[in-house]
Amino acid sequence: MKQDLDALMEKHNLDGLLVIGAATHNPMMHYFTGDVHMGDGALIKPRGAAPTLFYNPMERDEAARTGQHTRNLIDYNLPALTKEHGGDAVKAQAARYAKMLADSGLEKGRVALFGKVEFGAPFAIFNALAALAPQYELVGQAGRTLLAEAMETKDEAEAERLRRMGRITAEVVGRVKAYLQSHKAKGGVLRKKDGAPVTVGDVKTLINASALELGVENPHGTIFAIGRDAGVPHSTGNPDDALELGKTIVFDIFLQEPGGGYHSDFTRTWCLGYAPPDAQKLYDEVRHVFDDLMGGLEANAPFNLLQERTCDLFEAQGHATIRQDPAVQEGYVHSVGHGLGLNIHEQPFSRDASVTLRPGVVVTIEPGLYYPSKGMGVRIEDTVYVRPNGDMEVLADFPHDLVIPIEEA
Amino acid sequence: MKQDLDALMEKHNLDGLLVIGAATHNPMMHYFTGDVHMGDGALIKPRGAAPTLFYNPMERDEAARTGQHTRNLIDYNLPALTKEHGGDAVKAQAARYAKMLADSGLEKGRVALFGKVEFGAPFAIFNALAALAPQYELVGQAGRTLLAEAMETKDEAEAERLRRMGRITAEVVGRVKAYLQSHKAKGGVLRKKDGAPVTVGDVKTLINASALELGVENPHGTIFAIGRDAGVPHSTGNPDDALELGKTIVFDIFLQEPGGGYHSDFTRTWCLGYAPPDAQKLYDEVRHVFDDLMGGLEANAPFNLLQERTCDLFEAQGHATIRQDPAVQEGYVHSVGHGLGLNIHEQPFSRDASVTLRPGVVVTIEPGLYYPSKGMGVRIEDTVYVRPNGDMEVLADFPHDLVIPIEEA
Repeated sequence: MKQDLDALMEKHNLDGLLVIGAATHNPMMHYFTGDVHMGDGALIKPRGAAPTLFYNPMERDEAARTGQHTRNLIDYNLPALTKEHGGDAVKAQAARYAKMLADSGLEKGRVALFGKVEFGAPFAIFNALAALAPQYELVGQAGRTLLAEAMETKDEAEAERLRRMGRITAEVVGRVKAYLQSHKAKGGVLRKKDGAPVTVGDVKTLINASALELGVENPHGTIFAIGRDAGVPHSTGNPDDALELGKTIVFDIFLQEPGGGYHSDFTRTWCLGYAPPDAQKLYDEVRHVFDDLMGGLEANAPFNLLQERTCDLFEAQGHATIRQDPAVQEGYVHSVGHGLGLNIHEQPFSRDASVTLRPGVVVTIEPGLYYPSKGMGVRIEDTVYVRPNGDMEVLADFPHDLVIPIEEA
Repeated sequence: MKQDLDALMEKHNLDGLLVIGAATHNPMMHYFTGDVHMGDGALIKPRGAAPTLFYNPMERDEAARTGQHTRNLIDYNLPALTKEHGGDAVKAQAARYAKMLADSGLEKGRVALFGKVEFGAPFAIFNALAALAPQYELVGQAGRTLLAEAMETKDEAEAERLRRMGRITAEVVGRVKAYLQSHKAKGGVLRKKDGAPVTVGDVKTLINASALELGVENPHGTIFAIGRDAGVPHSTGNPDDALELGKTIVFDIFLQEPGGGYHSDFTRTWCLGYAPPDAQKLYDEVRHVFDDLMGGLEANAPFNLLQERTCDLFEAQGHATIRQDPAVQEGYVHSVGHGLGLNIHEQPFSRDASVTLRPGVVVTIEPGLYYPSKGMGVRIEDTVYVRPNGDMEVLADFPHDLVIPIEEA
């Protein structure tokens, strides 16, 4: 949580952190600014002190809205610094960061770097800063970084934003189900009144219109993949595909607050009209594992035990798993869950042996089986918030049924 | 242009380029992949040879859609590399990049780094690669980088995508104008049938719904700022603001192809119903400069001459300019234009003395005057494509008029 930042900086042996880039679609910056329209900037936080947000003069109003202590970048006179460094823009920017760090109250020490940016220039600038100002040790953390670890547990305000995204997502999924059921089938295909097939593209249009109406964004797109595409976990589905009855449809929806805020993540597998025996069997196998995992969730349990349990159960059912072969393409081919927040995938990851389902985490539970060669795939996913008292709260409540009943025309 | 890449790599003294990150909302990667749903990956291009796209196994179908030569990252066995490097994930990833570079046909030399990513880990990984594989010199370019310079001029396929975005943007602007004129004014405020004011938020909802219907995205939001907000160039406008007659409204719209493709960029300033004399005067002054600039556009002319001309004309009108004072907040406070493409702001920039309006560039021309203290601002912006023959083509055709006539209730 954000309130743990100083303690975590001590744990990570860091004296400061520096985040660069926009406030929109830049999770580490949004974590500090909230939803403001800031195209570029920098935030510096020394351990034990409040952050300073540096903004460009045209964005002073947006910067003020963040409630952070702010400074105007114009006061650092980059043109003068560029002259001073013989026209070298990289060195000038490095020199500016040195001044900004000092002005933020960070005189020296280990500083972790963050920000989702075009990284070529920062690669040069921060290497130049390391040469220019050796009192700073610039740290690029990989894996479970300082901010990733802070963001891993959510405070009540964050949980409430994630809850709201869950409710909106369930609403959108309900609209999609109602839309599908408002059509009738003929010749094994869901059809519009004029006889044209209902397509994957039609469903995606409805999803985007619903998201817009409900005030959320869909920047990563939606997976609505039928038949063989359902058997390829990250295939998003072909917009022109007609919705055939009796084929598995993997419907994985992940919406986001406008401007790059908190996410939802939710998957159901549907068969329109009926489920052929092999699709029903595949679903039952995944559902068995899903119910087993959800029923066994315990606060503070190691997350990777769920991945082990999933592999145990799928292997007992006779499926190949990623545990047996990291390159597996049919069977259980991915990991069972990940954290969810400002990033669609964030800490904790179920593949990581060191993390637990600590109170405050928000994680997905998403076992699945994939057989593109048989033209099918099944995934079921809920997102769970581990409350401060250890209770499990599902964030988007929706039935898990496979078959969506459809009338014949 | 993409076809100039090898020549530009020679000019930049580069033997290769490396782009990392997703294919969505990552301009440098999108430039090579087009619109595919690839969450992570890497692309390596040696000078004089075709690129190789490295993908994660779950995204093999999306990678195949790019038409690039592809390789599966699973074949690089990161877990084994991690063991080999004593559990150090950063060194393991550096070692993987060394193999990937060699497998792409790049044995040594200067390699420029690109990609919009969370940059802490790459900062560490590419510094580790520099230590591990000194046959590579890793270059973080700033300013007019190799790819920025390639992207600066558009080929015909890119121009056509930008043209289409211009047409869609003019269509959306037309819908906004029609929507405003479908309401009547009472008490100096545009009102709905029930008497409630039409708000900035209502207009933004219409814009987003229109964008969705027309198959484009609005990931950066829209500026629709009235009164004082119109006087702050990057203020996006307050959704709750009622649309009052006789106030300047700066309407700056920048849409994007889905998934992070090409943009539009377009601004008009409107007064609903009538223009008070001081707003009309401010508009006339900006319009005079805008018409002067647009009438004087010449292929291959230095872009910064337009900025000089803009300052000359505004100063002659008695306004303060950013040329006189970089911190100016009232008057002419920004630069007159920038390139437009996969980035909303890209090369060439009118502040840069070294760039010209070469055939193939797509640039904005956007003079403006800002007086927040007087509660007003005016900006007029068109986007211009300099055709291969040097002709100027405006990409979104729409009248420049200030006053939008409104009926009284």
